[in-house]
Amino acid sequence: MNQKIYSLLALVLLLSVTLQAQIEKVEPPFWWQDMQHNQVEIMMYGKDIANLEVVSEKATITGITKTENPNYVFVTLDTKGLNAGTYPIQLKKKRKIVDTYNFELKTREEGSRFRKSYDSSDMMYLLMPDRFANGNSSNDSSDLVTEKANREDANGRHGGDIEGIIQHLDYLEKLGATAVWSTPLCEDNDEAYSYHGYAQSDVYKIDPRYGSNADYKRLADELHKRDMKLVMDYVTNHWGLEHWMIQDLPTYEWIHQFPGYAQTNYRMSTQMDPNAAESDFKYCMDGWFVKSMPDLNQSNPLVLNYLIQNAIWWIEYAGLDGYRVDTYSYNDKEGIAKWTKAITDEYPNFNIVGEVWLHDQAQIAYWQKDSKISAIQSYNTHLPSVMDFTLHDAISSVFYVENPSWDKGMIQVYENFVNDFLYPDVNNLLVFAENHDTDRFNQRFQNVADYKLAMTLIATVRGIPQLYYGSEIGMAGDKSKGDGDIRQDFPGGWNGDDNNAFTASGRTAEQAEYFDFTSKLFTWRKSAEVIHTGKTTQYLPWDDVYVFFRYNETETVMVVVNNSKDARTFDLNRFKENLQNFTKATDVISGKTINVAADKMTIEGKSSFVLELKK
Amino acid sequence: MNQKIYSLLALVLLLSVTLQAQIEKVEPPFWWQDMQHNQVEIMMYGKDIANLEVVSEKATITGITKTENPNYVFVTLDTKGLNAGTYPIQLKKKRKIVDTYNFELKTREEGSRFRKSYDSSDMMYLLMPDRFANGNSSNDSSDLVTEKANREDANGRHGGDIEGIIQHLDYLEKLGATAVWSTPLCEDNDEAYSYHGYAQSDVYKIDPRYGSNADYKRLADELHKRDMKLVMDYVTNHWGLEHWMIQDLPTYEWIHQFPGYAQTNYRMSTQMDPNAAESDFKYCMDGWFVKSMPDLNQSNPLVLNYLIQNAIWWIEYAGLDGYRVDTYSYNDKEGIAKWTKAITDEYPNFNIVGEVWLHDQAQIAYWQKDSKISAIQSYNTHLPSVMDFTLHDAISSVFYVENPSWDKGMIQVYENFVNDFLYPDVNNLLVFAENHDTDRFNQRFQNVADYKLAMTLIATVRGIPQLYYGSEIGMAGDKSKGDGDIRQDFPGGWNGDDNNAFTASGRTAEQAEYFDFTSKLFTWRKSAEVIHTGKTTQYLPWDDVYVFFRYNETETVMVVVNNSKDARTFDLNRFKENLQNFTKATDVISGKTINVAADKMTIEGKSSFVLELKK
Repeated sequence: MNQKIYSLLALVLLLSVTLQAQIEKVEPPFWWQDMQHNQVEIMMYGKDIANLEVVSEKATITGITKTENPNYVFVTLDTKGLNAGTYPIQLKKKRKIVDTYNFELKTREEGSRFRKSYDSSDMMYLLMPDRFANGNSSNDSSDLVTEKANREDANGRHGGDIEGIIQHLDYLEKLGATAVWSTPLCEDNDEAYSYHGYAQSDVYKIDPRYGSNADYKRLADELHKRDMKLVMDYVTNHWGLEHWMIQDLPTYEWIHQFPGYAQTNYRMSTQMDPNAAESDFKYCMDGWFVKSMPDLNQSNPLVLNYLIQNAIWWIEYAGLDGYRVDTYSYNDKEGIAKWTKAITDEYPNFNIVGEVWLHDQAQIAYWQKDSKISAIQSYNTHLPSVMDFTLHDAISSVFYVENPSWDKGMIQVYENFVNDFLYPDVNNLLVFAENHDTDRFNQRFQNVADYKLAMTLIATVRGIPQLYYGSEIGMAGDKSKGDGDIRQDFPGGWNGDDNNAFTASGRTAEQAEYFDFTSKLFTWRKSAEVIHTGKTTQYLPWDDVYVFFRYNETETVMVVVNNSKDARTFDLNRFKENLQNFTKATDVISGKTINVAADKMTIEGKSSFVLELKK
Repeated sequence: MNQKIYSLLALVLLLSVTLQAQIEKVEPPFWWQDMQHNQVEIMMYGKDIANLEVVSEKATITGITKTENPNYVFVTLDTKGLNAGTYPIQLKKKRKIVDTYNFELKTREEGSRFRKSYDSSDMMYLLMPDRFANGNSSNDSSDLVTEKANREDANGRHGGDIEGIIQHLDYLEKLGATAVWSTPLCEDNDEAYSYHGYAQSDVYKIDPRYGSNADYKRLADELHKRDMKLVMDYVTNHWGLEHWMIQDLPTYEWIHQFPGYAQTNYRMSTQMDPNAAESDFKYCMDGWFVKSMPDLNQSNPLVLNYLIQNAIWWIEYAGLDGYRVDTYSYNDKEGIAKWTKAITDEYPNFNIVGEVWLHDQAQIAYWQKDSKISAIQSYNTHLPSVMDFTLHDAISSVFYVENPSWDKGMIQVYENFVNDFLYPDVNNLLVFAENHDTDRFNQRFQNVADYKLAMTLIATVRGIPQLYYGSEIGMAGDKSKGDGDIRQDFPGGWNGDDNNAFTASGRTAEQAEYFDFTSKLFTWRKSAEVIHTGKTTQYLPWDDVYVFFRYNETETVMVVVNNSKDARTFDLNRFKENLQNFTKATDVISGKTINVAADKMTIEGKSSFVLELKK
């Protein structure tokens, strides 16, 4: 190319840059008519886009916000009363249209606003999609994202995907699960450790290694066909460093900067401590969870609204049944309350459980909606559900106890329920023996007997039981060996797996014992309304036997958990408050009939009864 | 004696029984004019006294209550508006006066109703009178009570008395104490273990082995001369089996009967557990603390009023400055709230600290007046002060920690203050390292360095510091060896003691080190208003160094506690929120001046600073 031609080409290119499409991204890409949140703040992204004029002829623009980064403009469209349809947004320069985005208002699904959500009638199955089942091996790696599949690497991507979940919904249904909480599925483009999904790089897009947005919606649809529910794992606190907006920040304070990275002190108690140093409070809330996850600044209205709209968008788009919110108590304290209120204002029955990983019930109760505890500080999260981490703490150690004492043994479980009165809504607590961030239960107590005791508790106490994938077939995992160890592949999820625990015929005898017990208990629980919403009466454990009752006006269930290795015979007269109207009972687990009008009851060592009482 | 004379004598005796004095006991023995509690329910006791007519000519009887036991009559006298003086109560039979009790209304001390009480400006010294000092060896044993002195027996009576306390008030004043809490001094006529005084046999009478009621009043007077305060240890929950009323119960339900004895389950959490079995709740509250202590039934209005009047009587009679209430949360839940309200209605500024020995801050806060926690259950104890047992728990273990971790080390102390917002009145918490029911601190940590760290905390955190006698000179004691071991005699309290730790010259070098540190710290604290009522800012411990500030509008104190065995140098910039207005500081302990405008501060291993900051 000679010099002249080169210059001419350069000029043509320059002109085309000026006149061609300016819009690279629009978020949310579309919206719906008839929403409570009808002032939609549309983020438009493109090179120097802020220098253009924004015009909408069919709808009213009620606000335009620009930041110090000219590549962003935030356009607020008033969609109130608008019909479904397309509402073009034009970008103009000197009266000339430079680019147009046809913003669509879709028709809302009927009943969307008042959709039912998960509650204490559900059993929530927590899985990590990369490790559950590989339904489509063609998407194990993708050109669109960096990290490629490597099943040999405990911390690498293993290829599990949405298709894999869909293919095993029958299995989950048979297990007794009624809701699925998958850890995040949106794109996480980190170079390594991307499989966990908490360092998201695009929150409007399912990671291609899991499938597409349409696949995610299909997962919801398939679940709904089975009367099951889909719970999304939402991350308000942080994104990944690879998020395209982090790479070109709309504004310096989109994230918390010190400048740049500073680590959180992880001391969530600073968030309610009246004596806390301001700096400790701030570092907890605004410090980054890890270096690869910039901490979002929800005190910035643009950030907050972006997160609110994104969350609403997924509910409406995919037909979600609920949220689990990651690192809830690390968020900007006021911001996360506004976010939660906005979601539940839009969907009044929508359940959201926040991860508030604390070890004190007053401190956990602090984070539940309408808490009398947080009201002391005039604070209300609006968060419907919190996690019963203190029950997890008790279950994580109680089965070790061989000689019960004043404060060791089943008394630890008993004492957990003493403070139930601190919670505004005790039925909306998530109860669990483990999750993807803890030791696996079966690692701690390597025997099926203890597993059964734990599941008996999880299935029968108040709240929403949550199981962690694989434990129901005996999977173990040691957190001290790294997260990979507690997040191993479900056997049978990959073509060629020697052991396929998804099918009855593929299970080993040991796996079958775990599975059959779990399935029996949780299948029974599906229709056991007395467990979903009944009251509780608990009795002080004696000789490490813990007895409690769940009851309502028509049904009573007596649960007996013997944590001792020895059989125990105990006096039934002690329980006459709850037993007086009954003579016999059917044990849900063994199917046997038991006489409860007798003076005494005997239970084998390390075993439990779940007794439906009869007159 | 021949038969005739014998018969005549018998007749005379019979007549004289009928006509002579019927009254054996009257309680309260007198009252005061101008009391809020002006409807005085006077218990009159005597053989078949209930069969007599009760008449008062000078005052109005507004109520007469009889029980199934004819030996009691409860006469309510309306004392409202009456002048001081004598108001005879006559007992008549067939219009004939059988006996008369000259009930006296005394003149009230000026300012009695609004007397000041103990508060966070005080340091409370807890002693056991039998073990502190024997000021009068002539009363070591008494014909009036069963158990005799035997200093060889760790669980026997050693002879300490009120005179012994009075003789050592100068010592206590020098130590920095401003209030004395003595364990109970009323008569305890148990055959053995009577020295602890919690099984009282007469709650209107000081045990003769301690002195007389007048001696007790003299103790109060002597304390007041020194601007010091007297705190009585009141026991509402139970009396001893030897109590004269227990021996002849006014009514079957004066005490809780099952019938007779049943032990409490000691599970105080049943008192707020919404899931607790009624029987567990009842056994906790109504079961007996031990077999020798019948559990009083405060739900019976006669019992409740008896206890209210007795408590008011002692305040007014002896000039008390406050109460400590034993086993507060074992009492009838409604009854104890009424009792507490009645006392504080009579004396609006009167402080009462209840023993609520729980290990959860929400559960402790539950028992403090106007608690937002107990308000959840529409319950209010009216109890002004509770005990910070969780701080005690932390202090009992933190100094063992050699390698601090996420939840071990000074973080345990720090975390205790996180939940301060649960307490309605954080300045009215009793803070202590030990008491007469726990291991002695110096047994757990047998070195003066740890003792000093503990005292630094007790002396500078919010609340009312409480010291246990003898620890200030290094006394140790192991609860696992029996209560006697933690309640040994104060050296020097008995004539002939080899070691007299009451005097500077009598102390060993080691005792002097304990004493001098304690005395310096608490003498300073007497006028350190910023410690009494200042706010707190605490910082997350780093490397097991815990830093907190107490401040008000005019003063700031910086406390540094280094629990590591090694010296620590740390960045002062971290504390700029609290340090920014100051350049130097005086260490209360060493007297040295320290530069706080520097970037760094160094503190020796296992040591503390209490720094008064200066501009």
